[in-house]
Amino acid sequence: MAPQLEPFFTQVDELSNSFIDRLRKAVAIPSISAHDENRKDVVRMAHFLASELEALGAEVEQRPLGKQPGKEHLDLPPVVIARYGNDKSKRTILVYGHYDVQPALKEDGWATEPFELTVDDQGRMFGRGSTDDKGPVLGWLNVIEAHQKAGVELPVNLLCCFEGMEEYGSEGLEEFIQSESKKFFKDADAVCISDNYWLGTEKPCLTYGLRGCNYYSVSISGPAQDLHSGVFGGSTHEPMTDMVNILSKLVDPQGNILIPGIMDLVAPLTEEENSLYGKISYTMDNLHESLGSKTNIHATKERTLMARWRYPSLSIHGIEGAFSAPGAKTVIPAKVIGKFSIRTVPNMESEDVNKLVFDYIKAEFAKLNSKNTLNVWLQHDGKWWVASPKHWNFTAASKAVKQVFGVEPDMTREGGSIPVTLNFEQATGKNVLLLPMGSSTDAAHSVNEKLDKKNYIEGTKLLGAYLHYVAEEPVGEV
Amino acid sequence: MAPQLEPFFTQVDELSNSFIDRLRKAVAIPSISAHDENRKDVVRMAHFLASELEALGAEVEQRPLGKQPGKEHLDLPPVVIARYGNDKSKRTILVYGHYDVQPALKEDGWATEPFELTVDDQGRMFGRGSTDDKGPVLGWLNVIEAHQKAGVELPVNLLCCFEGMEEYGSEGLEEFIQSESKKFFKDADAVCISDNYWLGTEKPCLTYGLRGCNYYSVSISGPAQDLHSGVFGGSTHEPMTDMVNILSKLVDPQGNILIPGIMDLVAPLTEEENSLYGKISYTMDNLHESLGSKTNIHATKERTLMARWRYPSLSIHGIEGAFSAPGAKTVIPAKVIGKFSIRTVPNMESEDVNKLVFDYIKAEFAKLNSKNTLNVWLQHDGKWWVASPKHWNFTAASKAVKQVFGVEPDMTREGGSIPVTLNFEQATGKNVLLLPMGSSTDAAHSVNEKLDKKNYIEGTKLLGAYLHYVAEEPVGEV
Repeated sequence: MAPQLEPFFTQVDELSNSFIDRLRKAVAIPSISAHDENRKDVVRMAHFLASELEALGAEVEQRPLGKQPGKEHLDLPPVVIARYGNDKSKRTILVYGHYDVQPALKEDGWATEPFELTVDDQGRMFGRGSTDDKGPVLGWLNVIEAHQKAGVELPVNLLCCFEGMEEYGSEGLEEFIQSESKKFFKDADAVCISDNYWLGTEKPCLTYGLRGCNYYSVSISGPAQDLHSGVFGGSTHEPMTDMVNILSKLVDPQGNILIPGIMDLVAPLTEEENSLYGKISYTMDNLHESLGSKTNIHATKERTLMARWRYPSLSIHGIEGAFSAPGAKTVIPAKVIGKFSIRTVPNMESEDVNKLVFDYIKAEFAKLNSKNTLNVWLQHDGKWWVASPKHWNFTAASKAVKQVFGVEPDMTREGGSIPVTLNFEQATGKNVLLLPMGSSTDAAHSVNEKLDKKNYIEGTKLLGAYLHYVAEEPVGEV
Repeated sequence: MAPQLEPFFTQVDELSNSFIDRLRKAVAIPSISAHDENRKDVVRMAHFLASELEALGAEVEQRPLGKQPGKEHLDLPPVVIARYGNDKSKRTILVYGHYDVQPALKEDGWATEPFELTVDDQGRMFGRGSTDDKGPVLGWLNVIEAHQKAGVELPVNLLCCFEGMEEYGSEGLEEFIQSESKKFFKDADAVCISDNYWLGTEKPCLTYGLRGCNYYSVSISGPAQDLHSGVFGGSTHEPMTDMVNILSKLVDPQGNILIPGIMDLVAPLTEEENSLYGKISYTMDNLHESLGSKTNIHATKERTLMARWRYPSLSIHGIEGAFSAPGAKTVIPAKVIGKFSIRTVPNMESEDVNKLVFDYIKAEFAKLNSKNTLNVWLQHDGKWWVASPKHWNFTAASKAVKQVFGVEPDMTREGGSIPVTLNFEQATGKNVLLLPMGSSTDAAHSVNEKLDKKNYIEGTKLLGAYLHYVAEEPVGEV
């Protein structure tokens, strides 16, 4: 155990009610980045964070990001950046979080007011943003405060980067990170992001990989306007008929991608990697609980985790331009746009994937002998990310988990993407660790979002302990 | 030529400006049946019609239809029924039309105010409802007025049935027609409906057949809620994957229905019928103009007309529950409902079609080996209709066309359904004739709906001439 942890831990416990009050104040600010009318609240949340950090003695700046693209009447909320400590003999850790939240209305089905933190008798703290991502962001502030009150020096220099547009595509952030990489962020020795979740509810995890995502649109158009199916059904090629044909050739019901060559791009499974999955604390019951159904494709947890973490998948999201309302409408849609995405993994390069997708869809469309017109394009892509879990950043975090929770963390990857991860890695060139605070049942983005009191308080200890271990961890293998 | 037509025709020409004024007053009433806030205007339009009919000496009733199903705060607009003449020695003709209209906003792309009748220098009279169906409805009133002013007795008794909910599913009308079949409508010897269109712009037609429509929903559900494709893509059976597979097996891009047994239900093409299509005034250019594209399936007009009139077709309308907006959303929809319909023709019985559809979809779904759940059901059906074009009702109308327009009308069918046609046929047991006034370019339901002045004025003559010929046509073959 690092020598300074016991007094810090004691202070965290003593301050726990005050920390929950801090979270209550933050949750009370409806900092919904997607809603124009809440932009003032997002900015208010930035001010709140900045003033809390200043009160703790950090050097704080609120950096403007300019106008919001496509909504030029709105200023983007500022990035709150802060430095706490400037001792050249210490490592410098850059931490990221976001202070904006998803929309939430009581009418959506919340059992409590979404912007009033409500703690129940099981210690569940309900409120929008509690776990995503105000709890983790405040965790870093709590760490500083508890060190101060315990009279323990922070063993690292801390750089904070808290943004206010994460739930709306992190507009402007990538450029900001890039431009500050040799300025405000230049001293960073490693990066830590707390914005994801444990795989289950009992065992912490460290996350070292994310899948990427290539999102495609395929449009098929024919008639100049929507037609009446009574009048024209049978006389014209119908874009929807072609569309369901094309979409049906992308992936089979067992999840196998049917586009030739895609699977050849996937890094082979090594014996060593194969041996890791059995140890992960996860069960098929966990999957069934998350799905709310027993519609699993794979029979084992190992194969399920591989499907989620290390193999690509293809999902068909929907069709724009067709009839999508309840009821009946006898329309022949004139132009329909199918949307699908491929989750990418090492070693799939976006350009290679695009070429295979475009060539295949064009070839399949040609086989239909339709006089309609096809277009297919990439809407956006985000690269997969895999860090070395043997880096000192990870071994330090692993020791911190062991210290606080008494168990070795699961080393996990995630199926989804967190683009800021790759942005930080590429801009700083440093190792990035994902160190989640919340658990799999927190319902981020959903109704009744919550953070367990235990996850918040022990999570604050974990973040602090991590800083102690990361301060002294030898470089070792990277 | 029937002896009384010349003075009637002369009066129609002399009254043409007054008839256009009558249409202007009707178009000015925004009787949009789909909009709650316009219900008062629909009722106002009923009063307008009733008072015009009363001024012409008809016995008029405005019959309430009760509350609107699903919108119990709204009364359905009344059915305006009228009798003009009660001479037992004359035939009695029942005419149907509707006085409600589709929604219309200038912002939708109208070149003129949709509820101000605007006549251009080509004699095109633009306005919502001009052709669908206020022009034809007022045509019957014009006929009465011109006869009165010409001092010519109407050669038949006229029964009118004008409804105000046609554009919203004719709620309550079927029951009304049924209940009045042995009462107000009991004297009807034949029925005439003017609520469809010429096949082109130059040559009138008489319509003796309509396709039916069986509208199906197929739902596929799996997970309990929408899922994140990053987290769950590859681990769960996805309803959308199954859905596009099922929909792709219903119809091929050449319009061939792939459900086994459906085509076996279709009445064979006889030599006699086959010989009719070549004479119809229609070209592939007409089709291309209507489509706004050259995406025709068939190379000839004959095969195109057969596809539209006498063969079934299957159109896929869309998918409810999937992502349908512009942009990108990485969702795995938990439950999706595909919508498709089959246009039916003689001798397809709805129950037979349903059984083939249900059995096939269930069998195809079983082949997918998916753990998702399938449901398929009929949303609604409407039977096809074919009348005898040799009935005296049709031969009379044919003579009237020849008299007014100097040509033999095309004997046509329609690909779409007009359910009221079958309702009248079944309730009265009498022959129903569809006698259109407007042309194929009138853009009913669309922006810039219009009725050509020529179609309105000569169409008024046609309706009147029809009454004269139908009064004296021998029974002959039926």
